Amino acid sequence: MRIDIPFAAELLRAQDDIEILCHHAPDGDTVGCGFALCRVLQKMGKRAFLTVDDVIPACFGYLFPCVEKQSFEPKFIVAVDVATIDMLGSPEHVAKYKGRIDLCIDHHLTNTDYAKYTLIETAPEAAAAAETLLQVFYAMGAPVDTQVAECIYTGLATDTGCFRYTNTTSRTFRIAADMVDKGIRFEMINKTNFDTRTKTYSALEALALATLNTYFDGKCAMLEITQEMYRLSGSDESESHPLKALPRQVEGALVGVTIKEEKNGIFRASVRTNSPVDACNICKRFGGGGHKRASGCDLPGSSIEEAKKNILESIRVELESI
Amino acid sequence: MRIDIPFAAELLRAQDDIEILCHHAPDGDTVGCGFALCRVLQKMGKRAFLTVDDVIPACFGYLFPCVEKQSFEPKFIVAVDVATIDMLGSPEHVAKYKGRIDLCIDHHLTNTDYAKYTLIETAPEAAAAAETLLQVFYAMGAPVDTQVAECIYTGLATDTGCFRYTNTTSRTFRIAADMVDKGIRFEMINKTNFDTRTKTYSALEALALATLNTYFDGKCAMLEITQEMYRLSGSDESESHPLKALPRQVEGALVGVTIKEEKNGIFRASVRTNSPVDACNICKRFGGGGHKRASGCDLPGSSIEEAKKNILESIRVELESI
Repeated sequence: MRIDIPFAAELLRAQDDIEILCHHAPDGDTVGCGFALCRVLQKMGKRAFLTVDDVIPACFGYLFPCVEKQSFEPKFIVAVDVATIDMLGSPEHVAKYKGRIDLCIDHHLTNTDYAKYTLIETAPEAAAAAETLLQVFYAMGAPVDTQVAECIYTGLATDTGCFRYTNTTSRTFRIAADMVDKGIRFEMINKTNFDTRTKTYSALEALALATLNTYFDGKCAMLEITQEMYRLSGSDESESHPLKALPRQVEGALVGVTIKEEKNGIFRASVRTNSPVDACNICKRFGGGGHKRASGCDLPGSSIEEAKKNILESIRVELESI
Repeated sequence: MRIDIPFAAELLRAQDDIEILCHHAPDGDTVGCGFALCRVLQKMGKRAFLTVDDVIPACFGYLFPCVEKQSFEPKFIVAVDVATIDMLGSPEHVAKYKGRIDLCIDHHLTNTDYAKYTLIETAPEAAAAAETLLQVFYAMGAPVDTQVAECIYTGLATDTGCFRYTNTTSRTFRIAADMVDKGIRFEMINKTNFDTRTKTYSALEALALATLNTYFDGKCAMLEITQEMYRLSGSDESESHPLKALPRQVEGALVGVTIKEEKNGIFRASVRTNSPVDACNICKRFGGGGHKRASGCDLPGSSIEEAKKNILESIRVELESI
């Protein structure tokens, strides 16, 4: 059942012994929401703990001390920033929680209403689930202290690329202002999330950038990442994520493609587009998909040259259709 | 004479036939302020024009149509975001305006009070001169329309690295919110300023990143840029600017150095530091200087190896002193 902010606030006020679930491959929004909610509930004298079926990246370590470790049998389960039950993690983990989630607070258009009660504000209403969660805190009359503010700011800043992406609204900026006024460690949080690069990532970026090429009069830019590059740079696949944003940044490019050689020898394309090109259409031809501006697919082909040929053909068709 | 916001507002309200000066090597703040002030004055029925002794970068082209071309003998001259008279441009240009500037609106701590009246809000008061200028507009009762809002937003966003740097305050965020509510072309402005890279810049970055090295147990990271790299990548020196931010981003680095080979064969160091290292001290040993966290100097040495040796020795001394 879809509910509104006062209803969610009333639910949380009435409950105790609360377990909070984040999505796997945790990002700043799910983790920020998880810690914020956990702290607010604990500060209200309730028992609460956080469950993440994954390692929380070390870059969010500054949030860890804001909650107390508590252990109990939960009576109420809340998922934050989790669009589908499968996003919780492993099949065993998913099975454990299936049908048992009481409340979901989220901002994904694709939310499947797997929880008993679902509070959703999607873009352009909310850039991050943290925006909506903060409204719930206000409606609860909950204490938003410096630590909670750091959690909320982390959600906002990471989901908007530090207030750069189009999901950023005037409400996002106003909340950021309010959180800064709560005395958050602005410099440390921004340095950690947006101004730090490992040496191995830098080496990987150098190798990948050397492959940057453009096609179709510059309308498509492509970057390659191979297993050999991980070896040479001492990096691993988990570090390759930021590179996917680069090809679309190339001046004049409507389509930015990153071709990654996976460990199993399969070539995977990550496609980002600018208006009006549909990334999903490009990937659907190979059984992939995603969003209009960001999609992915596995490519047929036993060499990177074959894989490139295939995705370029799909891009050609798509560019000709606009 | 230092003046306050109401005084500056009164001055501008009382004047007509106004010339506005930006600093050379114009950035988003000086250009944003220049166009904003010019438009506001023109909309108030006054005559105004903008003078920049340099090419305004094409990335700010979206601001150009917001003012009308007007030509007249100025009766009042205003400099925006210009800390010293020398920042106006060539010696001839500086000589033309020396002693003739009526009003300066700025946010540099190093402002030399070269104007008759000077309005300054420095950090942490103002992240950008555009923040202060907007307060003047409000005090004037001036019309802040969508186009003026785009100018002000450009100043804020560019001087804060899109709300990432430590000069960003809650006022900065609140102004950004207000400007968004004026209907600015947020996506286009951010894409243009923060999400576009040329192919030649990408090629230069790849070559430079391949030289990234660390020293003193990772406390110093260094990048090299040579004339050969410009040739190989088809880029030029004007594109090298963003690279200077990279070495300090390396995890664990307290000092980030970029060594640039200039056209005349001289090696120039750009030094960025994290707390508590003083970049100015490192550069002063070679007759350079700047700010605590960002300084520069020409290095003795006829080869890049010699130049590196020299700056590393200065960095070693500085690191040992902390």
